[in-house]
Amino acid sequence: MRVVQKFGGSSVADAASIKRVAQRIVDTKARGAEVVVVISAMGDTTDELMDLALQVSPQPRPRELDMLLTAGERMSAALLAMAINDLAFEARSFTGSQAGVITTGTHGDARIIDITPGRIETALEDGDIVIVAGFQGVSQTSKDITTLGRGASDTTAVALAAALGADYCEIYSDVDGVFTADPRIVPGATRIPEISYEEMLEMAAQGAKILHLRCVEYARRENVPVHVRSSFSTKPGTWVKDIEVKEGSGMEQPLITGVAHDRSESKITVVGVPDRVGAAAEVFSAVADAGVNIDMIVQNQSIANDNTAITFTLPGGDKVKALDALHGARERIGFAEILYDDAIGKVSVIGVGMRSHPGVSATFFRALAETGINIQMISTSEIRISVVVGADDVDAAVRAAHTAFGLDSVSGEAVVYAGTGR
Amino acid sequence: MRVVQKFGGSSVADAASIKRVAQRIVDTKARGAEVVVVISAMGDTTDELMDLALQVSPQPRPRELDMLLTAGERMSAALLAMAINDLAFEARSFTGSQAGVITTGTHGDARIIDITPGRIETALEDGDIVIVAGFQGVSQTSKDITTLGRGASDTTAVALAAALGADYCEIYSDVDGVFTADPRIVPGATRIPEISYEEMLEMAAQGAKILHLRCVEYARRENVPVHVRSSFSTKPGTWVKDIEVKEGSGMEQPLITGVAHDRSESKITVVGVPDRVGAAAEVFSAVADAGVNIDMIVQNQSIANDNTAITFTLPGGDKVKALDALHGARERIGFAEILYDDAIGKVSVIGVGMRSHPGVSATFFRALAETGINIQMISTSEIRISVVVGADDVDAAVRAAHTAFGLDSVSGEAVVYAGTGR
Repeated sequence: MRVVQKFGGSSVADAASIKRVAQRIVDTKARGAEVVVVISAMGDTTDELMDLALQVSPQPRPRELDMLLTAGERMSAALLAMAINDLAFEARSFTGSQAGVITTGTHGDARIIDITPGRIETALEDGDIVIVAGFQGVSQTSKDITTLGRGASDTTAVALAAALGADYCEIYSDVDGVFTADPRIVPGATRIPEISYEEMLEMAAQGAKILHLRCVEYARRENVPVHVRSSFSTKPGTWVKDIEVKEGSGMEQPLITGVAHDRSESKITVVGVPDRVGAAAEVFSAVADAGVNIDMIVQNQSIANDNTAITFTLPGGDKVKALDALHGARERIGFAEILYDDAIGKVSVIGVGMRSHPGVSATFFRALAETGINIQMISTSEIRISVVVGADDVDAAVRAAHTAFGLDSVSGEAVVYAGTGR
Repeated sequence: MRVVQKFGGSSVADAASIKRVAQRIVDTKARGAEVVVVISAMGDTTDELMDLALQVSPQPRPRELDMLLTAGERMSAALLAMAINDLAFEARSFTGSQAGVITTGTHGDARIIDITPGRIETALEDGDIVIVAGFQGVSQTSKDITTLGRGASDTTAVALAAALGADYCEIYSDVDGVFTADPRIVPGATRIPEISYEEMLEMAAQGAKILHLRCVEYARRENVPVHVRSSFSTKPGTWVKDIEVKEGSGMEQPLITGVAHDRSESKITVVGVPDRVGAAAEVFSAVADAGVNIDMIVQNQSIANDNTAITFTLPGGDKVKALDALHGARERIGFAEILYDDAIGKVSVIGVGMRSHPGVSATFFRALAETGINIQMISTSEIRISVVVGADDVDAAVRAAHTAFGLDSVSGEAVVYAGTGR
């Protein structure tokens, strides 16, 4: 049995927490498993280092920022190894570079290209517990230290699990798993014991903060089972894995696995776009050239006039970039005006069950209508239906959907924290 | 022109200090030099990390401690590079490992075996300022991260200067250079403009804290000129270099270059050692086996009895180890008792001039006698005379020697801080 465990910054915020995590790791080792641990920086270390960088330079170079920030995980990895050694178990810490995490050269947002875990394998053969500093690697070309983007320790863990042929990867955090909805909004939300990679991908993309999109993509591609669970309890969490849906297996397949929501997007409407070939493409080119990823799109043909209105959603943080780009392209494209709205929210129902069941969207939209909620935009995938609603309607929409698809808990399982949404 | 500059922790204690040091480095670069900088951890970072380690484990593994502590220099190196970039100069930071500092595997006290500065050379060819994290390297055998022992950033700087064929190495700290005595004791002490490697070695060994012994040894072996100077002023400091003494050159060679003192040693007297062959050797073997380095030794033949008394000095911190070892060997060796005294101090006069001048010891001892100071022990080298006196007599002995050898300043050069002694 070989296991990769990942602990987040809140699990190692101080010396006492580090000792607690060390005990947890040792317990797994004592049950006979080979254990590789990926660790984040302690608590607010990364933010503190970033503050220090900004005191020294308003725009620190990404290469140097990576050199600075990776010190955080290096420190927590060493401290955790010490704490494990203190429990009379052998542990060895490795930087991302030492662990063989080879990445692209994009400082601050590098991608893992390859893992060459020779030193980890040697340490495991020696019977040691291996501690790897998360969030970091080394550039294949420049040999400089890189970071994978914030929160990417999860991805490091899954990538290591794949490279090491681990049986599974455990992601420990301060939440109990993935829930059918944010329990802060839906008191009857329940923990999802198992969820498929595809569903988890949609959950992550549609606002669930529990696992990063890239981490889930990696897990799906490499078929690594991921167990999302709390470092504060021994209860099982949520298994993200390859779930085969057996037709006619007698198992009741739920229509919907969960309801996700996202308040972080904004909406832009470009009014009076000339009704000529390529005008819409010019609008989106202008936005794309500014480096903004757009999410949902709706185009309305005006009946009265020879023009259209184009509405799209985008990350709220990209507002200025997108508006600047559009204003700059206004004369060329020839549209009339731009409307901006950040008082919106996106609510999504997700489930592989909808593949074989028509009528899911009807149920969803009827539930919203009966609650008096106006739908502004709609988008769908094979296993997801998303709507944009007013920001004030998000909570009510999540509750309405959760109830309409029969997800409300009967037993009232104790819920510690939300798995979805912000 | 190629220069290695080393800045200590007090020079980079906060963001403002880092910016000031960055400006200083940029000034050197702007004068056309290739610049390699070795940097220590910020202010108290190393102590803080050590505290953290002790909270996690009372006896942290040396390997993990090295992993932890080296994060300090990594952070200051990255921050310094950012600050230089912010002044519109190109700078790249490197860890000790990246800089090619290859060491033995003795964690916490590794020695530099080799420097393979390929990446530094490339960066210099690109016109970049190179920032190297001091105090650290990588083990030749295990590839683990090592530290060179505290304060060894000086050694890193000198070793890099040698490997890179630098014209000289500048060691910046908060003192103005090496002084003829500790100015806190001798107000008339003056800065020594030039000092030979041999003299600096003796000064360092006899209590001057300004440069580490190993650093001076390295500089002498590789013949690297070292300029010890203040990071808070642009005044010249002290050049440590190969000084050829020209016989009959007309230059007045001072008898004594400086007076060093050291209050950190203690004295042990083993009374009633049997007067047989090998008894003294057994005493010192017992102490050596406990890992204690002894400094000065005096053996007195008792006239009345068939035994001797052996007195030696040792680092005060090794007291317990030494006394335990001696008590354990007492029956075997057969001595009578052990006396311990830590209220002592060592005062040394140092200078290559004494090679060709007899009578230096007479002058030294007379000056002490006239001040009413009792000499407890004496030891000499070719260019040094050291005496052990009572702790309360140290200041007076330093002053008496300084005056007796004509070192007292006439002009009264402004003195910022002591270069010698604690």
